[in-house]
Amino acid sequence: MEYPNKIKKETSKSINYSNRGMDLELLINETNAYYVEQDRALIYKKPTPIGISEAIYTEHGRIIKNGYFKSPSTLDYNGIYRGCYVEFEAKETQNKTSFPLANFHQHQLGYIKRVLAHGGICFVLIKMNGNVFLLKGEDLISFLEENTRKSIPYSYIEQKGYLIKERYNPTLDYLTVVNEIYFKGDCFNGKEKIET
Amino acid sequence: MEYPNKIKKETSKSINYSNRGMDLELLINETNAYYVEQDRALIYKKPTPIGISEAIYTEHGRIIKNGYFKSPSTLDYNGIYRGCYVEFEAKETQNKTSFPLANFHQHQLGYIKRVLAHGGICFVLIKMNGNVFLLKGEDLISFLEENTRKSIPYSYIEQKGYLIKERYNPTLDYLTVVNEIYFKGDCFNGKEKIET
Repeated sequence: MEYPNKIKKETSKSINYSNRGMDLELLINETNAYYVEQDRALIYKKPTPIGISEAIYTEHGRIIKNGYFKSPSTLDYNGIYRGCYVEFEAKETQNKTSFPLANFHQHQLGYIKRVLAHGGICFVLIKMNGNVFLLKGEDLISFLEENTRKSIPYSYIEQKGYLIKERYNPTLDYLTVVNEIYFKGDCFNGKEKIET
Repeated sequence: MEYPNKIKKETSKSINYSNRGMDLELLINETNAYYVEQDRALIYKKPTPIGISEAIYTEHGRIIKNGYFKSPSTLDYNGIYRGCYVEFEAKETQNKTSFPLANFHQHQLGYIKRVLAHGGICFVLIKMNGNVFLLKGEDLISFLEENTRKSIPYSYIEQKGYLIKERYNPTLDYLTVVNEIYFKGDCFNGKEKIET
């Protein structure tokens, strides 16, 4: 059986990228793995939903011979941090002046609103012009409600977003920023402060 | 492009099953869809993680030509309910006297402990002898810590578990049981009671 090796090879190759060139998803996955290892949070990327049109049974189990990718209607990452539900999406654009909203799948923007209404922490990590910003779901929704533009100007992201500084380990320590934004003072949503 | 129709056909066929024969996963998916529609909770089944060893690009996008299923190390369902993080697993056995722990993938039992430690609501829905029980993660862990058996006797599940009665809509209303167990009185984890 050859394929598990092939997959592994691809993965280990990507770990050798320099951070500058490493894509956002890899940075986040690496950071989440670090958080899990340190027992700081349990946040994972949801597997990409696929549809299977042909599968066969072999001695190694069920193998997909024809599958296609579906569009997710929820966000890519979710989990628990300091007793709270957290869900977020990661997006990256080469565009320098504005972030095209077409980067979101249909339903995702409405879904952000729903997660917030249910009391979850919900945001987007946007990589643009070499910086990664955390933009709160609330600020994304306000923008959409107050504008008819099909993209968010970089100035809005710079002004409303929180810059996440790249560091050594974890590379993209977004939870430190989450702490500052959502757990200011002593509590979030009536919860007592938990030292992390 | 033929496969999307094929998939749809399979799905609609399964909706015609009588509840008695319907498998646990379908019952839960149907119930979760109802909860989302009613805006009572946002709980979804995580897609099964797959590994891809061969993919091709076609006019319809990227198509998987060789893929295999990976074992999940987290639980199957997660989401948010009444502001709280919820994660659970669904298992069904034909065994009448005891529930084999081999039904869990490696790492899943340890993971339940971690979700609880982070303040999440975590449980297993077990279908056995025609009944569906909610067994709290805490009770599952106690059993594992106090026993060396490789299976949980049905009597333990009957005694510690909470029976979920099948009804018309939603079919498997497990959140009503979650309410009774975790939101007794006014609050959970310091949260104020939210009417549902």
